[in-house]
Amino acid sequence: MQINGQDYRSLWFEDYKLYMIDQNILPFGFEIKEYTDYTQVLSAIKDMTVRGAPAIGAAGAYAMAMAAQSAPDAKFRAYLRNARKSLISTRPTAVDLAIGVSYVYESAIKFIPDLPHARQVALFAAHEFANKSAAECLSLGIFGAELIPFGARILTHCNAGALATVDHGTALSVIRQAHKQGKNIFVYVDETRPRLQGSRLTAFELEQEGIPHAIITDSAAGFYFWKKEIDLVITGADRICLNGDIANKIGTYEKAVMADVHGIPFYIAAPQSTFDFGCAKGEDIPIEIRSEREIKEISGAKIANPGSSALNPAFDVTPSRFISGIITPKGVFPAAEAAQKVQL
Amino acid sequence: MQINGQDYRSLWFEDYKLYMIDQNILPFGFEIKEYTDYTQVLSAIKDMTVRGAPAIGAAGAYAMAMAAQSAPDAKFRAYLRNARKSLISTRPTAVDLAIGVSYVYESAIKFIPDLPHARQVALFAAHEFANKSAAECLSLGIFGAELIPFGARILTHCNAGALATVDHGTALSVIRQAHKQGKNIFVYVDETRPRLQGSRLTAFELEQEGIPHAIITDSAAGFYFWKKEIDLVITGADRICLNGDIANKIGTYEKAVMADVHGIPFYIAAPQSTFDFGCAKGEDIPIEIRSEREIKEISGAKIANPGSSALNPAFDVTPSRFISGIITPKGVFPAAEAAQKVQL
Repeated sequence: MQINGQDYRSLWFEDYKLYMIDQNILPFGFEIKEYTDYTQVLSAIKDMTVRGAPAIGAAGAYAMAMAAQSAPDAKFRAYLRNARKSLISTRPTAVDLAIGVSYVYESAIKFIPDLPHARQVALFAAHEFANKSAAECLSLGIFGAELIPFGARILTHCNAGALATVDHGTALSVIRQAHKQGKNIFVYVDETRPRLQGSRLTAFELEQEGIPHAIITDSAAGFYFWKKEIDLVITGADRICLNGDIANKIGTYEKAVMADVHGIPFYIAAPQSTFDFGCAKGEDIPIEIRSEREIKEISGAKIANPGSSALNPAFDVTPSRFISGIITPKGVFPAAEAAQKVQL
Repeated sequence: MQINGQDYRSLWFEDYKLYMIDQNILPFGFEIKEYTDYTQVLSAIKDMTVRGAPAIGAAGAYAMAMAAQSAPDAKFRAYLRNARKSLISTRPTAVDLAIGVSYVYESAIKFIPDLPHARQVALFAAHEFANKSAAECLSLGIFGAELIPFGARILTHCNAGALATVDHGTALSVIRQAHKQGKNIFVYVDETRPRLQGSRLTAFELEQEGIPHAIITDSAAGFYFWKKEIDLVITGADRICLNGDIANKIGTYEKAVMADVHGIPFYIAAPQSTFDFGCAKGEDIPIEIRSEREIKEISGAKIANPGSSALNPAFDVTPSRFISGIITPKGVFPAAEAAQKVQL
């Protein structure tokens, strides 16, 4: 992605260090954080310095590779098993994390007892996972752009951008491609309460790429649906089930229903790591419930009635019947068939 | 309404002064503001020290009465006409404001050239308007409570409470009555971006009355609809048309659609002053577009990408087909019949 005219990935590994753009301070500051130990990466996933399903998948993969470097010879397998468990438990909904972490774990432990080789393989596997993820995001963007009519007014929710992935984005990869093709698009950016990934991160990425857009409150989408000023909706996903149900950022379900009621297409864009081939349906997806402080405070300042409690589910489930198609690196498929097509 | 154990109206007139609870600083501070001139009240309506359709209707009525007191004898009618125009233009969507202001204006000018009498009548008319509004809100609460099943989990949006009216509220009047009847209700409070009237004001009122509730982000309602944990939705309105279409706080339309898709009742509660007998349908309602600063800043702190613009419609329109019934001081009516029934 372009940031101030330079090309960046959201995270990259160099000289045994992981570098990540700090997504908590964007767009008010631009800082690259540096990590030398997997437990630091674990904290960064937990505090959302890195967020977005494919991005935390790659961060988890690199964290696992870092764990393999520091694991004591005598307890190599147990150390890695423990690291895997801790990493996966940080964010329960996005399956990419478990898939990235497990991919590196499985790759490495195959080579026990040749530990120098296992350590090297762990690094190769993490690089492979991250590079494949970036390439897949570019590919799905090219497939997805075919769905975008000239002059389309597109609604997106949360940040499914290059920041949420290793590069290019999912929903925003499609939008980037459509823009590059001169399709004269306009993007409505849901601010995405409570953490404002839309108004902070998606708006930032679109500005950097010169793509026309406006921020709206999450609730305002309905007004533009009613005015027939939204032509299609695209979001990313945190997990896609075998039957085509998906989990994504809280609020996605309402946009899918609104699109359906207004006869407008609703697309999901995701790389392969977002598919959970072990998950039959949306009801089986664990939904992360986050702290009420995200709702009741902004930067430490109280914004809600102090004596009231708040409920903060971070994701919701959109049943496949509300999804017009899933945009994948292998093409665009009906939701109920996507898992099968992607697995082939 | 009860605030810290004392009984309050959101606004009241005494000794030629208008007193209003400052709704911009609630719930972090509790202050009563004092107004001696109609232009001050005009500013208070504009800056939303007082907000909520029936409340600004009463504030407008009192402001008009204050204008009548200070109008020079020689220019009485012109002064009042000018005051009426300025007051009505502050908030274009809520019709209560125009109705309250015009009621006092029409009452007063009938008595020209007997100006002392016209001034007195203006005051009487304003009191009458405010008292009628409070009584109507109590009455609609009693009718509405009959619709609430025991143990109901109710979703409400924005603040349709005592603060938004002279007293009792509209949606919250129904909720107060149901709670008083021991119906063991629970209220989901949409925070209501951008101005957070839900998490600030509705949550405050519910806490003061001891009514069980939790704040959620506007987007999270979809998650609880999906889990079948919402039994009905009630909101207020800013304008009700002859055909039963309504305008209310931005986000109301999405909740109405969600209720419909999930087979759950969606009710509007409003006093007579919210009915616009001159408005045929929702498309005819002027929608106030407010400053993008409400979205991009909170208490002066930037919360969105500075280089992006934001669109901030303050209201949306819900077509009557999504409304299960309108709760009025005269009973509960199908949306398409409500205006006719209330006018009788």
